[in-house]
Amino acid sequence: MNEKKKLAETRLEGEVLFEGRLLRLERDRVRLPNGTEALREIVRHPGAVAVIALYEQELLMVRQFRYPVGRETLEIPAGKIDPQEAPLACAIRELREETGYRGTMEEIATFYTTPGFSDEVMHVFLASDLSWDPLTMDDDEFIALERIPWAEALKLARNNGFIDAKTILGILLAEGHI
Amino acid sequence: MNEKKKLAETRLEGEVLFEGRLLRLERDRVRLPNGTEALREIVRHPGAVAVIALYEQELLMVRQFRYPVGRETLEIPAGKIDPQEAPLACAIRELREETGYRGTMEEIATFYTTPGFSDEVMHVFLASDLSWDPLTMDDDEFIALERIPWAEALKLARNNGFIDAKTILGILLAEGHI
Repeated sequence: MNEKKKLAETRLEGEVLFEGRLLRLERDRVRLPNGTEALREIVRHPGAVAVIALYEQELLMVRQFRYPVGRETLEIPAGKIDPQEAPLACAIRELREETGYRGTMEEIATFYTTPGFSDEVMHVFLASDLSWDPLTMDDDEFIALERIPWAEALKLARNNGFIDAKTILGILLAEGHI
Repeated sequence: MNEKKKLAETRLEGEVLFEGRLLRLERDRVRLPNGTEALREIVRHPGAVAVIALYEQELLMVRQFRYPVGRETLEIPAGKIDPQEAPLACAIRELREETGYRGTMEEIATFYTTPGFSDEVMHVFLASDLSWDPLTMDDDEFIALERIPWAEALKLARNNGFIDAKTILGILLAEGHI
C-alpha cells in the first residue's frame, strides 16, 4: 500500500476572481507533490444546513424552483448559514421559515457536498418535538410546503425519486435514528 | 396545499463572470414569481461520475488531497466528465485511471450535488466483473488506492466515518444492489 505517498498541495499565491452575494470564487497557484505547479479554482461557500422533520409520520418537504438547474425540486428544508450564525441556530431558523415549525435539533451528519471544487460543508439535523412557531422568510424565496409519508419518502430516496444529494442522504441517514 | 403556487424564475439577462479550466461562473438577472427582479449566481459544472467497485468483498477507495477543503479525503473513485464524453464512458475511464480496474457499469443513481448554486449532476455507477486493465491518469492527480472491507465501509457511511456526500450516498444506495 501507499501509506507514505505524499499527497498534499501547498498554496503559493492566490486571487479572488469574484465576490458575490452567495459565493466567492478564488484561483490559487499551488505546488504539487511532485514539485510542479498547478492552478486550482475554488468556490468558497458559507456552509449550509438541512433538516429532517417529521410531523405525524410525515416528512416536511419544500417544493421550490432551483434556478441553477432550471427546474422545480422537492427537497428537505435547507439553507445557507448566515455570517456568525451557528449551524444549530441556522437549522432552527430555516425550519421555522420554510415550514412554520420549531423543532429540537440533533445533528446527525456533517459532510462536504463537493470537495473537488468547493468548501461547502452541509450539516444535517433531525428535528423532534415540533411546535407551530412560524418565521417570515426572505423576500426572494418562493416555496410550497408538502408532506410525504415517511415510508414513501424512504422508498423514493432509495429509488431515484428525489433529485438532490442532501435530500436523499438526509433521509437515508435519518432512518437509523427514527 | 399550494399545488398551484407559482415558483418559476425567468431569466432576463446574464453575464459570464469567469470561465476557468473546471468551472464557469455566471450571474443572471431573473424575474421572480411576484414580478420583482433578483440576481442569481450560478456555477456551471460539466457533471461528474462516481463508482462503487468491490473486489473480493473490499470497496476500492482513493485517498487524495482535496485542495478546496484543505485536507486528505478517502472517497470512492470519481471524476468530472470530459467534453462530449458519456457518463458511462467516464465511469469506465475514471475507475481504470484511479484503481487500475475495468468494470461493467450499472448506473444506480443520478442527482444534483448542490442545486442551490451549481448545476453539477453526479452519476453513481456500480461496477462488477472487475479485471486488471490500468490507464494512466492525469499528470496533476496524486492519489493512493485503499481497500476497505464492504461491511466496514457500510458502517463508516452510516456513522460519519466518511466526509464527502457522494461517497456516503454511493455506499448507502449500493447496499440495495449488492
